Amino acid sequence: MSQKFFQDLWPEELSYCFGCGRNNKDGLQIKSYWEGDESLCIWTPKEYLKAGKDILCGGIVATIIDCHCLNTAIAVAYKRETRELGTEPFIPYATGSLRMELKKPIPIQKPIILKAKVDQIQDKKIIVSCLLFSDNILCAKGEIIALRVSKDFWKQ
Amino acid sequence: MSQKFFQDLWPEELSYCFGCGRNNKDGLQIKSYWEGDESLCIWTPKEYLKAGKDILCGGIVATIIDCHCLNTAIAVAYKRETRELGTEPFIPYATGSLRMELKKPIPIQKPIILKAKVDQIQDKKIIVSCLLFSDNILCAKGEIIALRVSKDFWKQ
Repeated sequence: MSQKFFQDLWPEELSYCFGCGRNNKDGLQIKSYWEGDESLCIWTPKEYLKAGKDILCGGIVATIIDCHCLNTAIAVAYKRETRELGTEPFIPYATGSLRMELKKPIPIQKPIILKAKVDQIQDKKIIVSCLLFSDNILCAKGEIIALRVSKDFWKQ
Repeated sequence: MSQKFFQDLWPEELSYCFGCGRNNKDGLQIKSYWEGDESLCIWTPKEYLKAGKDILCGGIVATIIDCHCLNTAIAVAYKRETRELGTEPFIPYATGSLRMELKKPIPIQKPIILKAKVDQIQDKKIIVSCLLFSDNILCAKGEIIALRVSKDFWKQ
């Protein structure tokens, strides 16, 4: 596979997020990558992340939507500055708000595919929306507003 | 303490949720209780649940808001039927949608207080909103729409 996962390119010290940090051994470690103008994430849940029997916990659905969309916002910010992903200085964004609709129960045993796209870019704000599929069935939708934050935000 | 935690009263087999199940040893195990017409939840994050240094992961914020609000919806459904919490048959609800605003970074080391209230009750739909405080500072707001589901939904 030749795609670069966004999360593998961020600075070491910013890679401890529960949802997407490659250095968080107890985290979900989701990976996002470009496929054309969409960003994709393929991830398989673990048993302890359930809500009820065999159904993925809604909060974990929110977590993977949030992390996939926020990583996509940062990746598009690099693209917009025609810079290679991961080059210094890092372009910091944080989630300002999130919306999520749960349409169908998401099975815990099967891989999930998230597809995100950038809907709007403003000066300090990027809106990213996301569809979540399991077994080719649309199970959830989400959207975040990502806000540009100061260079020290994630280091405080 | 005389309050009854909602999550301690649900059936054993429905108590494995990552966010709030008392039987999920790897979960967050949040606890919710009535204080007047509000429901409260006091919970302290763990280090591995961070986003960046010392800041709680946004997806975990969504998880505790979702679980606290959904438990509140179920508790109010019992109240509405003038039934004791936890008596059989269990009244099943599931989150249909969630909205969350993150206003300030939430420190990972300090207890969080969630205060939820029921905004609207319809036949098969309960809307619950929630404020999240850390150190007495309002850091996040959330809302869920909880939908009444079939008795087998969580058992499938």
